[in-house]
Amino acid sequence: MRLPSFSALLVAASSIAFAQSADDAAMVRKIYSEILTSSPAYEQLRVLTTEHGGRLAGSKALEGAVLWGERELNAMGLDRVWKQDVMVPHWERGAKESVRILPSKGKARPLSALALGGTLATPTRGITAEVIEVKSLAEVANLGREKIAGKIVFYNRPMDPTFIQTMQAYGAAGDQRRAGPSEAAKYGAVAVVIRSLTLALDDYPHTGSTAYSPGLNTVPAAALSTIGANALSEALAADPKLKLEIKINAKWHPDAPSHNVIGEIRGSEFPDQIIVVGGHLDSWDVAPGAHDDGSGIVQSLEVLRAFKALGIKPRHTLRAVLFTNEENGTRGAAAYSSYAKEAGEKHVFAVETDSGGFAPRGFTLGSTQGDAHERAARWLPLFEPYGIHMLQKGGGGADVAPLLLQGSTVANLVPDGQRYFDVHHTAADSIDKVNKRELELGAAALAALIYLIDSQGL
Amino acid sequence: MRLPSFSALLVAASSIAFAQSADDAAMVRKIYSEILTSSPAYEQLRVLTTEHGGRLAGSKALEGAVLWGERELNAMGLDRVWKQDVMVPHWERGAKESVRILPSKGKARPLSALALGGTLATPTRGITAEVIEVKSLAEVANLGREKIAGKIVFYNRPMDPTFIQTMQAYGAAGDQRRAGPSEAAKYGAVAVVIRSLTLALDDYPHTGSTAYSPGLNTVPAAALSTIGANALSEALAADPKLKLEIKINAKWHPDAPSHNVIGEIRGSEFPDQIIVVGGHLDSWDVAPGAHDDGSGIVQSLEVLRAFKALGIKPRHTLRAVLFTNEENGTRGAAAYSSYAKEAGEKHVFAVETDSGGFAPRGFTLGSTQGDAHERAARWLPLFEPYGIHMLQKGGGGADVAPLLLQGSTVANLVPDGQRYFDVHHTAADSIDKVNKRELELGAAALAALIYLIDSQGL
Repeated sequence: MRLPSFSALLVAASSIAFAQSADDAAMVRKIYSEILTSSPAYEQLRVLTTEHGGRLAGSKALEGAVLWGERELNAMGLDRVWKQDVMVPHWERGAKESVRILPSKGKARPLSALALGGTLATPTRGITAEVIEVKSLAEVANLGREKIAGKIVFYNRPMDPTFIQTMQAYGAAGDQRRAGPSEAAKYGAVAVVIRSLTLALDDYPHTGSTAYSPGLNTVPAAALSTIGANALSEALAADPKLKLEIKINAKWHPDAPSHNVIGEIRGSEFPDQIIVVGGHLDSWDVAPGAHDDGSGIVQSLEVLRAFKALGIKPRHTLRAVLFTNEENGTRGAAAYSSYAKEAGEKHVFAVETDSGGFAPRGFTLGSTQGDAHERAARWLPLFEPYGIHMLQKGGGGADVAPLLLQGSTVANLVPDGQRYFDVHHTAADSIDKVNKRELELGAAALAALIYLIDSQGL
Repeated sequence: MRLPSFSALLVAASSIAFAQSADDAAMVRKIYSEILTSSPAYEQLRVLTTEHGGRLAGSKALEGAVLWGERELNAMGLDRVWKQDVMVPHWERGAKESVRILPSKGKARPLSALALGGTLATPTRGITAEVIEVKSLAEVANLGREKIAGKIVFYNRPMDPTFIQTMQAYGAAGDQRRAGPSEAAKYGAVAVVIRSLTLALDDYPHTGSTAYSPGLNTVPAAALSTIGANALSEALAADPKLKLEIKINAKWHPDAPSHNVIGEIRGSEFPDQIIVVGGHLDSWDVAPGAHDDGSGIVQSLEVLRAFKALGIKPRHTLRAVLFTNEENGTRGAAAYSSYAKEAGEKHVFAVETDSGGFAPRGFTLGSTQGDAHERAARWLPLFEPYGIHMLQKGGGGADVAPLLLQGSTVANLVPDGQRYFDVHHTAADSIDKVNKRELELGAAALAALIYLIDSQGL
């Protein structure tokens, strides 16, 4: 007999690679077909958002969602389902807030407004003061105590529509909400209103966290709808001495018990090595939380369901983690990563889905061991038929980021975000804003990426 | 002196290419920023869909939209705006159709239904007959006259959810609507109902054209909502002898006058060479036509507006064509291409936008001179920051396809189509289903591609 030639070996090796690639393509196709034909995710999302809407940390609604999540995981026939105790911050809005323009002459004019999450209350009679409109925190510092003291600061810098990724526009405008009230307090402001963080012009106010801690010098703060912000700006131009009246009835309570909910399929080869897919169970008190983040929750469940339905036995332990308290504390993320560290668990990959149930565009990936997104790029041809073209460097979302420090590669599903800030942190974040197929395509992209990482390593 | 070395020439050439590319990137950025900050397209769409909804060929609403389009173009300060006379088919739905299940026992049960566009009427008393459910035209032929004669044929093959591109699923199911009635008539059927062409499960019936010509042997036909189709299928399984009653009051009139509306910026270097961007003005009678195709109309206007606003003087003549009668005749397309041929106009590029005002994913391009999509691929890096990754071979849409035969390269804007068939040809195709930014991103992608082709050739 003759030994095979080097070129014959090359041909054989490339045939193996080709066969592997064809097998992968067939499995990715099976995953997509299973999910697009048989997924219960949209119906699960309907139940979660309509029966457990407004599930903020500390609320009964959130603990109802915890039990719902545990039931759904138990019904899937997984190897293990459990709840992890987590103490979470407990802030309540109380009776509905109000913000009114009191013109120099004429009748008061109400504006659509929502107290920011974590804000202090005003006195019951409200706070009434003149208003100074600014575009940035730096402008407040430049104006100084002389111009700011005794006034209500109105942060009115819009999100920049020229960013293509709306998430970047949100990032660039978000300091007004997070740090605007405490910055204004430094110079003696008595309250703050901010322009809602959205690119849409409508009458929905958007809540969201503002900085709070027991010792922080800050002031009561509310978000105005973009229509309301424009109205206030125009009113100020015509009547600079108008006053604004703000009433906020919020209250901080002691920390409350909540839970992460976790379900897993035990790994066939590496049971002690964990792959996580997760989203967050909590939502803002005013929001059904369909995109933020009910979609991520049902997509995480769907990944495990699809593996079971297709008879894929993961080599690593595959875990869905339904995190609690992402919106105003990320205590769920902290508790999960602490648990993982104490238990000596090795997390090899953790992917988060918390950017809305829209058609997926790609993933960001991050690792402390070199460029994970570049290694994953070998799979891009497998994803292209499914409209997934983007693999970029990124740190993972708030819930999986702590696992990066324990050596896990982390990732985010990146859906098309053009519509996300139309409904983000508002009462309009309801299931009618979610398209069933877009939701399912996101779940399929997650399942396919996890399949590839589980079977081949990253 | 020394002549420059070959490698120095290469460096110089690549610097020129790099500088050109940087200039292109800067201009693409300017186009996107202009449109994302200053576009009136969404407000124009609001007027078109709310003041001129249900603009089917032959209707007063369509001619109202024609005058609206002419006014909008005139207001833009173009070099020339004109209307082209086109005679169009004129079919009217008449009084509302009805489809009812008449069970063997018990009360009649109405189903949500819409007569198909172009269908014949039933007698005033309706058509009442037993129903035979089929999944394909081939099944009708196989069953033959013995099983079909005297019955109502119910085409109930769903669109296939495993196609990633919904347009492909539509294509694969669409023969039921287009040819189902005439095929059933061959075997003696008395009427036809079809399952609506949508991937959604809801109670909106979807109309659309069915084959009609004066001599064609065909029968009255209506579409059932997908909920209605499921209900009929279940009722038939329980009660195979049930009857269906169909009343349709449609009427064919003589051809009616309509118009293409055309506006142009005269080319600075090649005024006799034309670049077209276009969509269609008409919509189904029941539909506001926001995605189909009000979006394409306002995007076409926006391309010309952005060129003017940015001071871009196109080298070729740049024309927006608002085609009439795409939905049930494509007489506007035929008239425009005939005019172009008779006038001896050379069309170098014609791009159509008629797949909804969703976030753009790419383009299909077709040419009789080799693979236009491969030549255009050199621009993909310019588009990637804007989420445009796809350039595929394709023939252009119904309105620009005739120009291909005259030597023009043709193209289609391809937006993300997951939501398109939720509203296609229904009363739900209203402006609240269109996101302002997604609409604008589509216009910007069109303007950028046209800029590149105009400035550099394809």
